[in-house]
Amino acid sequence: MIEEPQVETHGVSDVDAACAAAHGAFDAYRATEAEARASFLEAIGEEIVALGDALIETACRESGLPRGRIEGERGRTVGQLGLFAGVLRRGGWMGLRIDSAMPDRAPLPRPDLRLRAVPLGPVAVFGASNFPLAFSTAGGDTASALAAGCPVVVRQHPAHPETGAMVASAIRAAAERCDMPAGVFGELSGPGNALGAALVADPRIAAVGFTGSRAGGLALTKIAQERDVPIPVYAEMSSINPVILCPEALRARGAALGTAFVGSLTMGAGQFCTNPGLVVAIEGEGLDAFVDAAGAALAQAAAQPMLTPGIHAAYEAGVAALDGHAQVDLVARGQVGEGVAQNQAAFFRTDAQAFLADAALGHEVFGAASLLVVCRDEAELVAVLAAAEGQLTATLQMDAGDTALAARLVPLLELKAGRILANGWPTGVEVAHAMVHGGPFPATSDGRTTSVGSLAIDRFLRPVSYQNLSPELLPAVLRDGGQNGAPVLIDGVQH
Amino acid sequence: MIEEPQVETHGVSDVDAACAAAHGAFDAYRATEAEARASFLEAIGEEIVALGDALIETACRESGLPRGRIEGERGRTVGQLGLFAGVLRRGGWMGLRIDSAMPDRAPLPRPDLRLRAVPLGPVAVFGASNFPLAFSTAGGDTASALAAGCPVVVRQHPAHPETGAMVASAIRAAAERCDMPAGVFGELSGPGNALGAALVADPRIAAVGFTGSRAGGLALTKIAQERDVPIPVYAEMSSINPVILCPEALRARGAALGTAFVGSLTMGAGQFCTNPGLVVAIEGEGLDAFVDAAGAALAQAAAQPMLTPGIHAAYEAGVAALDGHAQVDLVARGQVGEGVAQNQAAFFRTDAQAFLADAALGHEVFGAASLLVVCRDEAELVAVLAAAEGQLTATLQMDAGDTALAARLVPLLELKAGRILANGWPTGVEVAHAMVHGGPFPATSDGRTTSVGSLAIDRFLRPVSYQNLSPELLPAVLRDGGQNGAPVLIDGVQH
Repeated sequence: MIEEPQVETHGVSDVDAACAAAHGAFDAYRATEAEARASFLEAIGEEIVALGDALIETACRESGLPRGRIEGERGRTVGQLGLFAGVLRRGGWMGLRIDSAMPDRAPLPRPDLRLRAVPLGPVAVFGASNFPLAFSTAGGDTASALAAGCPVVVRQHPAHPETGAMVASAIRAAAERCDMPAGVFGELSGPGNALGAALVADPRIAAVGFTGSRAGGLALTKIAQERDVPIPVYAEMSSINPVILCPEALRARGAALGTAFVGSLTMGAGQFCTNPGLVVAIEGEGLDAFVDAAGAALAQAAAQPMLTPGIHAAYEAGVAALDGHAQVDLVARGQVGEGVAQNQAAFFRTDAQAFLADAALGHEVFGAASLLVVCRDEAELVAVLAAAEGQLTATLQMDAGDTALAARLVPLLELKAGRILANGWPTGVEVAHAMVHGGPFPATSDGRTTSVGSLAIDRFLRPVSYQNLSPELLPAVLRDGGQNGAPVLIDGVQH
Repeated sequence: MIEEPQVETHGVSDVDAACAAAHGAFDAYRATEAEARASFLEAIGEEIVALGDALIETACRESGLPRGRIEGERGRTVGQLGLFAGVLRRGGWMGLRIDSAMPDRAPLPRPDLRLRAVPLGPVAVFGASNFPLAFSTAGGDTASALAAGCPVVVRQHPAHPETGAMVASAIRAAAERCDMPAGVFGELSGPGNALGAALVADPRIAAVGFTGSRAGGLALTKIAQERDVPIPVYAEMSSINPVILCPEALRARGAALGTAFVGSLTMGAGQFCTNPGLVVAIEGEGLDAFVDAAGAALAQAAAQPMLTPGIHAAYEAGVAALDGHAQVDLVARGQVGEGVAQNQAAFFRTDAQAFLADAALGHEVFGAASLLVVCRDEAELVAVLAAAEGQLTATLQMDAGDTALAARLVPLLELKAGRILANGWPTGVEVAHAMVHGGPFPATSDGRTTSVGSLAIDRFLRPVSYQNLSPELLPAVLRDGGQNGAPVLIDGVQH
């Protein structure tokens, strides 16, 4: 028999207790061995799987996302926890460094210096509506913060409260099974912005992970900056993920690109941070074929339910603004849906001069809407890319004959995006070591970081140097020979 | 014949040209080979040395610091440039990662993912008054930013304009000698705050390095956060560097500790970020000997000129506030100096309850002033340390019999400071790989970083992921076998 998920509703007055519990757990939790935390992360994954079909059904019902997608997302969530377990066991996350003492150096001896990363403190995690599992209660922010040794207080997303409550119960079960300190995980549920604002303002919170809207991310960042002790906010916010159609690729396979583009655009009702909201091409052979094929595919695209009525309303407003723009032409709309909050896909077209003249054309419309910007030449293409804001991704659709052009563009794209991809679509974000799901503002609030992949753990760590400490006082991993296989930089050389 | 240094004075209207030049140099500079940048850094060091005695004399005259200190600082500056040259050649700074493609993975193939760090863009560097060479025009911020591939615009410190101009000429000579792009280094000189404010606000500036006062660092941080595109500010601001006198050490060598403490306190008129402004001890045997010896040494301490009349006035105001505090007793003052801006050292004493009752007692008085806080027991000692703000350093003076106490304190100190040291004094900051000269707010504005040591380069880098790019499009260091000895994480394993 499946228990009904219990969703408590919290108010601002509950923030104090949640933060006190996280703070109270911090010393014991950061003192746990990396292996113990690795087992804890794996246990969370096991407990999530043990929730069985009830979790899948609940997440589908609350998000409107199809079963296959949610099942895949559960696999991704469990895999992500496992990735960080592996990171903990390999030890590179500690950033170990040892500089040997030189007692005879003149004029002054060099001290013994040893360095490792330590966790920042309790982390506030804001679940995202569009990934009710992989970017929510036990998503990448939670996994990386727990891996780092930081207790987590999740502000559950109001769009999927039951899913959140079920996953929270799995985390608590894992914490109990692994003898983790009480308070290592807490949650706050309920509507409105005041709860999250109070959480970020609490002096015991040391960092914030957020995936959501630009307005939401900026509001939390402001609160964090205005505290007596400011804290870092890692907000993944806004990206339109330019796709560049290079001339040879367009000539060779314009129609196929159009069809494939619509597949990426409409996946999950376009509700991905990496949704291709901007297509940039130079006028030429194959462009008409691309537009025709994309328009035809889009016209057939079935309506899909959006995550919340609010997201749907914002989407409709964004599409209406494009539709009413004097320099923007509608290429095609998707199918009209039945029922509430149905996403009707949309594809528009403009030219480079119009795009350059109106910054609003470069703003995200969250959902399956995209804008083709047609350029007269490479100079206009470069100008459009240079004018675009910071992005999570930039994609080159290219053939061998486009290599010279692409090579000229890559240095520009490096300044604009966290990930550059060729001949794929941006909507798949691999959970891996070499992934960057981040990028210059406003893609994120801190372009030096990623929220997906193993590098995400760095967000919740800071380095501490130990000078002339006796072995008894040093962390075990910094004692001579205590690295246990973890990478260590000794006198500047990586071992 | 030595040329007279030419000090131009710039106004806000000059900021545009300086930033345009840096922006214009960025693409060419970031495209240089790491080896070329390493040679450039070494050439800067050579050109600084080639300035000869004129630089030493100028820096002594402008700073009031003694010749031996300035000569040592020149060595440190040149050594620091050499450290980053070594970092560039070893390649770990790039953070290379490769995840192999898995074309046959089900349900979806895994793409080829490769990651490296790229430079942020032009960096604004604010020279510090207290280190006219090592933390100024060609100091650690400049060296690490140039190493990262970022052009630098230095806002010269008005307290040593001629020194700054001479070092700037050395950097320009090195840039020319090494065929670096024009604009890789620029400078702005002149009085007032408007110049620096305009520099940080310029949209072409991508990051800021600053060493100075809390008020100055916070003002620049606010400007950076309020830009259309916010940028990171690495401000090293305010620290009182607690020194904990453990009971056994006090019993065994209280008097010797007192004398040595005054040596650290009064070095350079106390004008070090790591100056020991707070001493914490538990009542007991040896404490009187410490206080007596420290008082006697301090009473003999010669007055020393401070860097600027403004710094001296702030010091006098801070000392007067301590002197007039009802719960604070004066232990001793140093010698009164002759001439302007002479630092008269000061040592005060209070108890834990008074310290805990007034946060102002934990604020920095920049100069040779320190406060002893006497605690009744370990619980009070812990409370005092817990109440202290974030620090650059925390020092344990301890003997073998203090190990158990020290082991209980280290976890707390890890949360409070960037560097923990035993049986030394915080005022020596080794330029090394395992150094952290940073710490939680307000020691710095970003406690995840260091401004001294090779890890400082990370402040000016961000990761970019390359997905399925052909070898021709990949940076050479990410091609198969192209790492040229640089460390690389392949499928999660460090090589």
